[in-house]
Amino acid sequence: MTTLLTNAWILTLDDALTEHNPGWIQIDGTTITALGSGTPPSITGAEVVDCGGDVVMPGMVNTHCHMGMSVFRGLAEDVDDRLYRYILPLERKFVTAEMVRIGTTLSALELIQGGVTTVADMYYFETEVAEVCDTAGLRAIVGQTLADFDPPDHKDFDEGFARVDELVDRYRDHPLVTPSIAPHAPYSTGLKTMERIAQWSAYHPGVPVQMHLAESTLEVNWAQENHGKSTVAVTRDAGLLKPNLIAAHCLQLDDADITMMSEHQVCVATNPRSNGKAGRGIAPVEKMRNAGLPVGIGSDGAMSGNTLDLFSQFAPVSMFAKLLAGSRKPLPAVDVIRMATIEGARVLSLNLKTGSLETGKQADLIRISLAAPRLHPIYDPYSMLVFATMPDDVTDSMVAGRWLMRDRQVTTLDSGEALADANQIARQFKAEMARIDRL
Amino acid sequence: MTTLLTNAWILTLDDALTEHNPGWIQIDGTTITALGSGTPPSITGAEVVDCGGDVVMPGMVNTHCHMGMSVFRGLAEDVDDRLYRYILPLERKFVTAEMVRIGTTLSALELIQGGVTTVADMYYFETEVAEVCDTAGLRAIVGQTLADFDPPDHKDFDEGFARVDELVDRYRDHPLVTPSIAPHAPYSTGLKTMERIAQWSAYHPGVPVQMHLAESTLEVNWAQENHGKSTVAVTRDAGLLKPNLIAAHCLQLDDADITMMSEHQVCVATNPRSNGKAGRGIAPVEKMRNAGLPVGIGSDGAMSGNTLDLFSQFAPVSMFAKLLAGSRKPLPAVDVIRMATIEGARVLSLNLKTGSLETGKQADLIRISLAAPRLHPIYDPYSMLVFATMPDDVTDSMVAGRWLMRDRQVTTLDSGEALADANQIARQFKAEMARIDRL
Repeated sequence: MTTLLTNAWILTLDDALTEHNPGWIQIDGTTITALGSGTPPSITGAEVVDCGGDVVMPGMVNTHCHMGMSVFRGLAEDVDDRLYRYILPLERKFVTAEMVRIGTTLSALELIQGGVTTVADMYYFETEVAEVCDTAGLRAIVGQTLADFDPPDHKDFDEGFARVDELVDRYRDHPLVTPSIAPHAPYSTGLKTMERIAQWSAYHPGVPVQMHLAESTLEVNWAQENHGKSTVAVTRDAGLLKPNLIAAHCLQLDDADITMMSEHQVCVATNPRSNGKAGRGIAPVEKMRNAGLPVGIGSDGAMSGNTLDLFSQFAPVSMFAKLLAGSRKPLPAVDVIRMATIEGARVLSLNLKTGSLETGKQADLIRISLAAPRLHPIYDPYSMLVFATMPDDVTDSMVAGRWLMRDRQVTTLDSGEALADANQIARQFKAEMARIDRL
Repeated sequence: MTTLLTNAWILTLDDALTEHNPGWIQIDGTTITALGSGTPPSITGAEVVDCGGDVVMPGMVNTHCHMGMSVFRGLAEDVDDRLYRYILPLERKFVTAEMVRIGTTLSALELIQGGVTTVADMYYFETEVAEVCDTAGLRAIVGQTLADFDPPDHKDFDEGFARVDELVDRYRDHPLVTPSIAPHAPYSTGLKTMERIAQWSAYHPGVPVQMHLAESTLEVNWAQENHGKSTVAVTRDAGLLKPNLIAAHCLQLDDADITMMSEHQVCVATNPRSNGKAGRGIAPVEKMRNAGLPVGIGSDGAMSGNTLDLFSQFAPVSMFAKLLAGSRKPLPAVDVIRMATIEGARVLSLNLKTGSLETGKQADLIRISLAAPRLHPIYDPYSMLVFATMPDDVTDSMVAGRWLMRDRQVTTLDSGEALADANQIARQFKAEMARIDRL
């Protein structure tokens, strides 16, 4: 089966930032087999899609998400102690395999509609997440969380490891879904279990490790009080600072931490909207990138960042870099789009498969309409994408040659059912919150 | 002519934050004549619009904009000296009445599509802006700029005052368009001319004054070097700190400045995205509001902030307040929506006419679709509006009882013509920029 996209403004995001305008892309099966400018080839029997001058670019890579948590979106938004007052009690009581399936389905819809084609997830009941991503057609890193705070799907680490092993067994050879192990954070895993995970990881080099790192002052204080060093140093001591570590947040870092992370070739997922909304701080993105660390962009869960598309993150990540430097120059728009595509793919070790439009790579791409007045004029397409484009401008999405969305309609999931299910869960949450408030 | 909106989730933004859900609003001519919950009245001959459970809320108030500048959107985004290298030369060469008309039309489309029903503008050839807003049906404060840097429409302040007088003469009694005088900034107006404006203003108490204030360190240094005091103090000395001053930006303030502004009951327009993108800093919004200053939200021009809707400003203004405090608690979502509606109207002295849905007020309102998965679940409508809603969710817009947009189609302006005209100007700009780069 051949698909031919024609008459597109193609942003390839290859190393040379090649553009084809007007350009065409040939897709055979799951793979990009040719692309270029000018007259497209004539291929008998091909599905030809005239893109009418729209932008076609790599699908975006969301490097940190908790898809199951979309049912918590906007809950007790401005309450300082909402984590302990509402969220952990609600998770313990209500987070089941079914809830994770419902939340993940709602998130998958939003991700596809927002132009994300690859997502790195960590949460509970992660085989459910894997199944939903498979159905949705999303490329995904799917991480089973391990934590010591009585999480909803394992009573101790042994049970947690059993869940990881089941996930890895089922998905080790899946074309789209990569299983992953996800220690929650240094303070909620502990040095001993981090060491155990590092040993496990040595036997599973193809399984990415995802972890929250240096996210909060609470975590920094834990590391100092218990180990007399930074949380990054504790993670290094445990043997977890490795090229297949996807470290999320990375806010509370000093220069020595960044050097240490660079020496161990760690990968970073920055979550500007989540960090900003929580008032936690600004990640040193420019410093990390200048030290050679690949930095991708993540949405975090909808409980923290509310939306899961990456367009919502572009203004924050840009503004934060510019505010730190006191200049409009740092982190130019093209670098933000690199982070959202090829650099994000690099963070997930998927850069040979996705993140740019090049011959031999998987056909993971999105089409963006230029109809909205707010997009014009266009002096630079990257600036347009970073500061004016919105998720609703994405009209079509393809992963591995399969259309996931055509003309804003997601073809792989049922939107009405997902919304009804999610709102039903929200009614249970509201009742429980009212009960908590009466206590 | 009576219009009856039914089956709506009405957020009135009155003092008690009354909601009617499901609710109805009766509009006779330009005015809201009744609203409530439950069964709507039966009115013979009324246009009845069933809102299908959608949110209906006050149209938003953009308190600082340069509508003519949309043709500069995204130009030389990451170039540190772009103002002197490109923008001022382009303005001098190309800004004509016709260019302002084209840029303003493009902006009017975007404002209407983004849920803004009232806009405060300051730029050049401002009678053109007034005419476009009148045609578009937008409520507007339209400010003729006065500046000393050889601006495109007046060679000296006398000519500038003549333009102001013409604007005031033509629009003093217009139902939607309020004329305004707009000294560019203290450093680009100078103490003497600021005093002259203050005297002029004393004879025109109904004419709002708009000015950039405490925006940059350049301005702060100018005030210290030339007057040995803060730029706010210089403005006070000139007699311009008054309740009808709309002060834009207000970044570089100390506590004494805020006290001074509070004593003189100044109004503030904060522009978080513009300030953040330029790396200029974070406005002390919480401090100003706690000191009793009304603070509205502005987009600034598209050259600086790129988009003109207020949804784009909500995450930045929220995150900045929370980052300054190191907590998720400050500036709760409901206060952000207040700033975008009734408090913004107060900043423009239009709060008796617009900014909330109450009997006797003008029917300035928008309808927001809840169809997008990213909006659900909804625990709090204000959180949903601040952190998940996007301009494309706004389906309908009404000002003074007149529909400006129905089902995403702007009824008062021609979108295709505006885009073609704006892109034609952009081609001229690009050619001139290439010429500058060859120099």
